[in-house]
Order: sequence, then C-alpha cells, then structure tokens
Amino acid sequence: MQLKIKFLKWSAGIPVAMLHKETAKKLGIHTKARIYLRTLIKHPKEFHTIVNIIGDHIVKKNEIAVSSEIKERMNLSNNQKIEIGLAETPISLDLIKKKLNNQELSENEIKEIVIDIVGNELSESEIALFISSMYIHGMNLRETIYLTKAILKSGNIFKLNKKFIADKHCIGGVPNNKAITSAAGTADTMEVLAQVGFSVDKLKKILKKTNAFLVWGGAMGMVPADEEIIRIEKELKIDPEAQLLASIMSKKLAVGSHYILIDIPYGENAKVSLSKAVKLKKKFEKIGKYFKKKLEVVLTKGDQPIGNGIGPVLEMIDVLKILDPKQQGPKDLETKSVFLAGKILEMTGKAKKSQGIKKAEEILSSGMAYKKFKQIIQAQDGAIKKLIPGKFKHNILSDKNGKILEINNKLINLLARIAGCPTDKSAGIYLYAHKYDKIKKNEKLLTIYSESESRLNEAVKFYAKNSIIIIK
Amino acid sequence: MQLKIKFLKWSAGIPVAMLHKETAKKLGIHTKARIYLRTLIKHPKEFHTIVNIIGDHIVKKNEIAVSSEIKERMNLSNNQKIEIGLAETPISLDLIKKKLNNQELSENEIKEIVIDIVGNELSESEIALFISSMYIHGMNLRETIYLTKAILKSGNIFKLNKKFIADKHCIGGVPNNKAITSAAGTADTMEVLAQVGFSVDKLKKILKKTNAFLVWGGAMGMVPADEEIIRIEKELKIDPEAQLLASIMSKKLAVGSHYILIDIPYGENAKVSLSKAVKLKKKFEKIGKYFKKKLEVVLTKGDQPIGNGIGPVLEMIDVLKILDPKQQGPKDLETKSVFLAGKILEMTGKAKKSQGIKKAEEILSSGMAYKKFKQIIQAQDGAIKKLIPGKFKHNILSDKNGKILEINNKLINLLARIAGCPTDKSAGIYLYAHKYDKIKKNEKLLTIYSESESRLNEAVKFYAKNSIIIIK
Repeated sequence: MQLKIKFLKWSAGIPVAMLHKETAKKLGIHTKARIYLRTLIKHPKEFHTIVNIIGDHIVKKNEIAVSSEIKERMNLSNNQKIEIGLAETPISLDLIKKKLNNQELSENEIKEIVIDIVGNELSESEIALFISSMYIHGMNLRETIYLTKAILKSGNIFKLNKKFIADKHCIGGVPNNKAITSAAGTADTMEVLAQVGFSVDKLKKILKKTNAFLVWGGAMGMVPADEEIIRIEKELKIDPEAQLLASIMSKKLAVGSHYILIDIPYGENAKVSLSKAVKLKKKFEKIGKYFKKKLEVVLTKGDQPIGNGIGPVLEMIDVLKILDPKQQGPKDLETKSVFLAGKILEMTGKAKKSQGIKKAEEILSSGMAYKKFKQIIQAQDGAIKKLIPGKFKHNILSDKNGKILEINNKLINLLARIAGCPTDKSAGIYLYAHKYDKIKKNEKLLTIYSESESRLNEAVKFYAKNSIIIIK
Repeated sequence: MQLKIKFLKWSAGIPVAMLHKETAKKLGIHTKARIYLRTLIKHPKEFHTIVNIIGDHIVKKNEIAVSSEIKERMNLSNNQKIEIGLAETPISLDLIKKKLNNQELSENEIKEIVIDIVGNELSESEIALFISSMYIHGMNLRETIYLTKAILKSGNIFKLNKKFIADKHCIGGVPNNKAITSAAGTADTMEVLAQVGFSVDKLKKILKKTNAFLVWGGAMGMVPADEEIIRIEKELKIDPEAQLLASIMSKKLAVGSHYILIDIPYGENAKVSLSKAVKLKKKFEKIGKYFKKKLEVVLTKGDQPIGNGIGPVLEMIDVLKILDPKQQGPKDLETKSVFLAGKILEMTGKAKKSQGIKKAEEILSSGMAYKKFKQIIQAQDGAIKKLIPGKFKHNILSDKNGKILEINNKLINLLARIAGCPTDKSAGIYLYAHKYDKIKKNEKLLTIYSESESRLNEAVKFYAKNSIIIIK
C-alpha cells in the first residue's frame, strides 16, 4: 500500500511509526506489528519498524506518521510517497532462539543478529531475548570475538595516522571512577566544563591541537549496535559478560587504539569478585591477542567509592583539585590515576619498566597534566570555571562512635541518581569518610546535594530506608 | 510534579504516555523511563507506566498525554490534575533475575511477578526476560501450580451454579483444529456466524437459553496476565511449557470447569513430539489432581492439517457440512470431533464407558447437534448464512504423479496468514488431499483464497519458495 510520509516532531530516541486505524485494518496490522517502509525509486531504500500506535487523530488514512529517527535513516521528505507492507519475521529471531537453546552461533549468524539490531528489524523484546540467552549460556571466546567484530562493523571507524593511540577503560561499578554505569560517566563529568559530542571531523581537528580528547563516543556513531544493546541491558539491569567484552573491545578497535589498558575493580559491592576478575582478565588478554593489540589488564580494589565527590560537578571538583598543583585532592583517587597513567607510559615505552608511576607523578606535580587538561577543555569549546554543587543540600551525620565497615557502591550510586545524577550536573554526594575510617557520633558522614527540593527529600528518605554505610 | 491529563485518541492496545520535552527534562526523564501517575485524592489511585514518547508537538508543558488504556485503568477525566514522578524499578525484576539464575521461585514471588505484569509495572523487555527464564530453566510442578493460581487471581472468575461444566482444550499447532496459534482460532471461526465477545452478565443469559456457548475468553477479562504474557510470547515465537500449562489451566479454573478434556496433537510438524506429549500429559494430570478436577488428556495424531478448509470461513464451511445430517463433511475432522465429544460424554457419566463415541454419533446423525449449534449461534446474536470464500483465488496443482509424504502444518498456517487469516475471514486454504493420498500430475492440491489481490500474490509467491507439500 502506498502512503504519504508525515513527520512527527517527536523525539522518542527510537523509531516510531503510526498508522490510521482504517489503514491498519486494511493491511491487517495490529499494534506491535512489524512493517516495511520502501521508497519508490529504482534502487529503493527499505527500513523495517514496529507500528507503535494506531489512531485516528494525528494521522490521516493515506498517511504514515514517523519520528525523526525514521526520517533520518531513510532520508525522507514530508509528503513523500512510500510503499508500506507487513514485514516477515527476521531470520535472526531463529538464530537468537538457537542461542537460547544453548547452541553455538557462527560468525555469520552473530553478524546477522547484530545487523538486525542496528537495522531495527528486531524489537526490544527480541533483543532482550538475545541478551538473556547470552546471560544464561554465556559465549565462548570464538563467539565473543565474532560479536566484537560484528559490533565494530555496525558503525564508523575512526582512522588516525598516529603511532601511539592509547586508551584506558574501566568496567565500572565504583562511584567516582568515571564509568558509564555509575552516577556520572566520564562524558557526564567532562560536560561540566566542555562539550563532549563532536563529529569525527571536528574530533580530528581537536586532536591536531591537543593530541588528546575526552568525549562521548555515542556522538561519533562508532558502535550503534552496542548502544542499542546497552540501552536494553540497562533497562533489564543485566550485563552479560560476552557483551561487556565485545562492547569495550569494539570501541577500542573503532578508534584504532594500539595500547589498551583495562581497569577491573573487584571486591565486595563491586561489579565482580576477585575470582571473576581474574577470569575476565584472561578473556580480555585473549581477545587483545586475537586483534593483535598491546593490551594490559589491571585488577584494582573496588569495594568502596573512590575520591570524595559523586556526581558530575562533585567529581570534577575532585579532578581539578588533583590536577592543580596548588590544591590538594583526594589522595586515593590521585594514587589510582597516577598508577593507571604510569601503566600507559610504560606500555607505550614512554617510561621504563617500573618508572611509569614516577613519571606520571612528575607530570602531575609539575602542572603539565593540568596545562594539558586545560588545553583539552578549551579545544572542546569549554573553559575552567568555578563549580558549585546543588543548592539544596542535606548532611548525614553518624549516629554512633565507631568504624566504617562498609560503603555500598551500588546504593551510593542509586542515592546519587535519586538526587538527580547524571542529568542534574550539580546533584550528587560528598563523602567525608572512607572504609575503615574511625568516626564519632554526630560527625558528618556525607552531604547530599540536589537541584530540586523534592529530589533531595526523596534521596534523604532513600538513605534512611537503606543500609548504605555500615558503622560498627 | 503536577500535570494535567490530556487524552489521546489512540489505540495502542497498550498504555502509552507522552510528555513535553521540557517537562521530561525537568523530571530527569528519558524515553522509556518508568513513571508513576497518582490521583490527587485522599486514597489515591496509582499506576505505573513507561514514557513512550517525548515531544513538543501534541502535548503542552503542563500536560501528560495518555492513551485510552491508562484513562480506563485510572478512571481519569480530561484536564484532571495528577501527580507524576519517576518510579522505582519493581522488585519483581529482581525476582525474574532470580529465575534467570535458575533458582526456584516461591508462591509469593510468582504472585508478585504476575501482579506487576498486569499492573504494567514491568516493560515488554522485562516480561520477555521472564518468558525466556521459564523457557530455558523450565518450572517445576510447584512453580507451575503457583503460576496457574497467580494468573487465575489476576482476573475475573465466572461463577455458575451448575453441576456439569465441561471444557475441551487443544494445545494447538494443527491447521483447522481451532486453536489460537493456527490460522483461525475457535473464536475467529465462530465470528463468521455470530458474536463472540460478551460481558459475563450477557454470557449468563446465553447460558440460560442454551447451556453452552462458543466465545472469546479475552472479552471476559478472566486472565489478563495470561493475555499479556501470550502477546509477548507470540512476538518472540517461544512458548515455555510452564506458561502453556498455566495458561490453559487458569482459563479452565476461571470458568469453573469440573470436567476438562485436553487434546495434545503430536508428531512431525505438530507442536510436540510423542515423547514430549506423554510428559505434558502427566503434568496436566498432576495439576488437574492438585485442583481437584476431573481431567483427561488425549494424545492425537497431529502431523498434518485436519479437514479441508483452513481459515475462518473455510473452516466453518467444514463444520457446517459435518453438523448438517444432509451434507457430507471431511471424515477425518468428523471422526476426531466425535471422539472428543464421546470422551466428554463418558467423563460426565452421560455415556457409559466405551459408549461415548456411539452416543456422540447418534447426537450428530440425528441432527440434534446441528440444532443445538444453531441455537447457540442465535443466542450469540448470529444466524446460519451462506458462506463464500475470498474472491481472489489461485489453484496449486501437483507437478508430478506421486504420493503426498508431508504437509507442513506450520507453513500451511503461515500461508493462510499471508493470504489474510484470521483478520480477513474469507481468506484461507482449501486442501483437496491429505498425507499418503496418491495424486496425479496437474491434479489440484489446494486453492488459496484471499480478499485482496496483493495478499494472494504474496501467498502464491510464498508457496513457490517453500516446501509446504512434499510429493514423492
């Protein structure tokens, strides 16, 4: 059936299509049916999507209303005529079921699934099925490598003619460790001072000036398959190991990194236990070897938050204090940063074996690191400025004399999120004490900051209801 | 935040909520976020839903647009003010993950999950996760009984003061066997001649007249949890055994059946193999015993379509030919129907052991069955009328002399669906031959009927591309 395109000023973040109820009836289409959209030219563009809404209000009988995502993917213009019809279930759903039945997938089969995820051929429930099959049965090394390759192929590759491309990644789980699952990812924190979403062209210009950047990979369109899978993983709150490996490795490969440093925080309330961290390390090393990269994995203690601030503004305050030689930042965060930087200096041969930390400390204490950071901020259209945490705040005091036995990472992250992180940049938590510190009754444990009173109240209530910090 | 309700003339079939982009930003809400809606009265009604769309077009900053499903669930009026906020992830998602990690669920845990499915607390992807956890790990008898109870509790119960309530159910998979997964369910076929969607009150009136009905259970609001799970199972094309058992049993319990006959067709291209059918039979019997019902399970050969017609009109034509003593219908379908009816007559004591078939045949050949059927049709606001298959048709001829070795049930159902079933009532397939029949070159194998030329062409193409009937 031929229909006219109507654009909806919607931002669903995902493709949305809407039909008039009589048109839907004529086509025998129900809500959630899979349809194809095909342009009427010699070499037609085709796109598959789910019919989200059937109505008689916004869309006419001879129209199909689509969101901006479909418009852009198909390069459509308003009132353009296109062909619509019922689409068949993609073969990739059978392949997902193969995995669900614990059969190994081939390279082509994994490619097919990833292509259909990016191509919007698979619904969210179907992608959830794929995620759960990976979660339950796992993937062997072969499958994980195929998944990495398929995700890598789903997007753009960032080609640079540089000898040293170094890249550090943390698997996350520890507050203030600047990872995507915490209350503030690296990009969220950088956004406090600078822009983080750039086109590949603009990034190349930034690199010419600074030889470094701190940006949000999503804007580069590098690994769209990964983003789609992660979006649903976040909703389901499960994170299968194969996808974690493929997600990280595909991003490192997409930017052409030669030197890759992976940080795996382990321990109580971290994402992984020590034994799981050791296993994960081996897998990373094998995949790194397969792709002929110089890859090192460090296991770091991750049983409590690092630094004092949690949330974009509060974490950036910690960072600036460490970088600025005239100020004193949280020592634990400084030590870890210098350790990781030292590793990269050694990996790239910029420092001799076991001299990396010393060299990194010199770069930091001399102010060179701070200078370079300011240069990057400027190149990314930003500037160093005075940072102020959220205007609504509440202090949490210790209710007894004792020793801090536990600070629950997951609950601290959740507390910061309830206070408004990462959307509200100045929301977050300031921690005054760490694990094993002694504390007196009525001494300040932490301050919750928020941009709204209601969010602050919700966070305070959440703190009261949960055992976030245990003192004995 | 307080917002005004705006109704959307949408029929999404599922709850849809839409916010202005600035409102969403203020609340820190992204598309797919879970929110609560709470009425501003002393004992407020609360409903959780996903924000499907964020826009600046249809909805104002001080409004939330909702689809009719939310309106009805919360009994809202236009412009009514309600409180909106971010909702926490339901605990049931953790319970689903427990099952995903292969741990047994308790009665309360299963109840919690089912309540959240019906309450719209769980997203489609999250329900998909539950389905996949059942699919992979299965459920033991205890869990299956808890699931049955929870689904039963999710809806209305049909209370009748009758001594004999008998109910026949087929697990499906065989064309023309009148089951929900085929090209025409019982209700689809009945709808050719009568109404099938009635309120519980109206059904009680029908029963007074006829002592029987053939209706669509969905309209009775009996097991909403089951409907929601099945909707997603259909999309995923997986059908976990525990859900199949709970789905069937909860519906039988909701109508208060004392006598339950379950038909499990088995064999090549059926839903289950013989060995699986035997296992399923035992499970049905155990659950029936638990609920103190007289339950029998028959295993029937299901390796090919039964009867000649496939699709609502074509199947009803078969049915009327069998019921009318003056006509001759397909013998295989008649034999099976008489066998099942005989079983019920024996179970209820209306016929002596091994005399059921004979009694059923008498009822059929005397015209009593036809008379009762006409009475039911009339009570359900319908009438017997002349039935004509779709006006566009195409004959498929045998391309050789030989013997029919296989008729693929799944592909035949799909073929009928492509032709328009079950939405287009007169679409479908007429089969001239069955398995093991001899056939000559150019003899008619089947006719495809459709209500539209394009659907007919698609069906003809589909037949050409697939091995639906194998002749050797």
